[in-house]
Amino acid sequence: MIVGLGPGATGQVTPEAAAAVAEAELLFGYKPYLDRLTLGPGQRRQPSDNREELSRAEAALAAAAAGRRACLVSGGDPGVFAMAAAVCEAVERGPDAWRALDIAVLPGVTAMLAVAARVGAPLGHDFCAISLSDNLKPWPLVERRLTAAAGAGFVIALYNPISRARPWQLGRAFERLAAVLPASTPVVFGRAAGRLDERIAIRRLAEADPALADMATCIIVGSPHTRLVDRPDGQPLVYTPRFAAAGADNAAAGGEASA
Amino acid sequence: MIVGLGPGATGQVTPEAAAAVAEAELLFGYKPYLDRLTLGPGQRRQPSDNREELSRAEAALAAAAAGRRACLVSGGDPGVFAMAAAVCEAVERGPDAWRALDIAVLPGVTAMLAVAARVGAPLGHDFCAISLSDNLKPWPLVERRLTAAAGAGFVIALYNPISRARPWQLGRAFERLAAVLPASTPVVFGRAAGRLDERIAIRRLAEADPALADMATCIIVGSPHTRLVDRPDGQPLVYTPRFAAAGADNAAAGGEASA
Repeated sequence: MIVGLGPGATGQVTPEAAAAVAEAELLFGYKPYLDRLTLGPGQRRQPSDNREELSRAEAALAAAAAGRRACLVSGGDPGVFAMAAAVCEAVERGPDAWRALDIAVLPGVTAMLAVAARVGAPLGHDFCAISLSDNLKPWPLVERRLTAAAGAGFVIALYNPISRARPWQLGRAFERLAAVLPASTPVVFGRAAGRLDERIAIRRLAEADPALADMATCIIVGSPHTRLVDRPDGQPLVYTPRFAAAGADNAAAGGEASA
Repeated sequence: MIVGLGPGATGQVTPEAAAAVAEAELLFGYKPYLDRLTLGPGQRRQPSDNREELSRAEAALAAAAAGRRACLVSGGDPGVFAMAAAVCEAVERGPDAWRALDIAVLPGVTAMLAVAARVGAPLGHDFCAISLSDNLKPWPLVERRLTAAAGAGFVIALYNPISRARPWQLGRAFERLAAVLPASTPVVFGRAAGRLDERIAIRRLAEADPALADMATCIIVGSPHTRLVDRPDGQPLVYTPRFAAAGADNAAAGGEASA
């Protein structure tokens, strides 16, 4: 079982994910995700570091092949920059017997959906999700994708925006986006959405400060059509209209349109 | 309350969504979504057609402004091509009093996550979501976004792929994608993921047939790096590796790269 625990609030864990956790014998995962679980006496945890996805997947597959009920947990959804792809890679490289295992992926609420929900509907039109980590891909590719997506009018959700080992990438990403998008484009910083320690900040692109993010933040950068609706309580609604006119891919705004 | 019910299986409805439905007095939504709910004696349904999002949002806001506990339900996640954006539009256009309402969006598992989970991890790397409906945007814009996203190496999830009123758009989309992506690119058709009437089909792009889709299908088109892992039970795993090399945006494959 490869299980998504959602963004953190227990009210956002699906019943099938909770049941899969309850029935597992061995639970594998990044320690902060395992720390969210209340386990029974017959259950054992196998925490590992967040850079060890492939070896964690292999350990879980080996346990399953030995007949144990093994469960890998991810925050959010396991298919979005998380463990499901690592398990598939391990199956492809591993012994033939692993291909015959009964593998199930249980989806979850991924961070961008939870952050979007807290502010309105910034993902209300076409959007994309990009990991800013250049541990697994070359940085110039990240920049080309940012430019292509912004130029084509997609709203952009940024995962893994910053860490101690990757301090400058988010600032560079904002610079690349500012070359294509209006300075007034709304940017939402969302951390721990739905949890007690939630932090939500809304800025314009020209004032978007990388210091507002840490490695647990998901950032949503609007399209040129994303709007703010002021409200008396002080936090505006942020939404991207369902309608798009011709030229909504920013071609007319001097951006680097793609076609 | 604007609530996401997930793709359809009751095990994929979050506890907070179920609680919000249970506490509502008036429930608004597209009839097939309302039909999923078991309501109590004090609760009333207000079904409407799937083309009437804005008037449905206005009706729910008017009820809330009159002091009723109103709940709008969406399938999947309400922020992804669904009701949350329609409510924000209605608030922006509507009377000032609507801006002061206590509006909450409760996220859900959106279709692409549920479909991806059933086949492995096709969204394992950067991806985007595009609605193929040209009711709300001009078709040439859809084509430009498809070309930009495929050329930049994104996996692409297609929502609203086909309907009686929009019969040719999906075939045209596959043609545009085939001009950029290898013929062998995996394509996943997923309908009613996780439900009893689930239908999943995996094809290569050259054999992707629009007849495999209906309006309730979500389609995931891989990147040039998306892989199939054969399994003895006959259904392969489909996944996109977490690693991407330089040139992974398809520039070397003759595609229309964007930068």
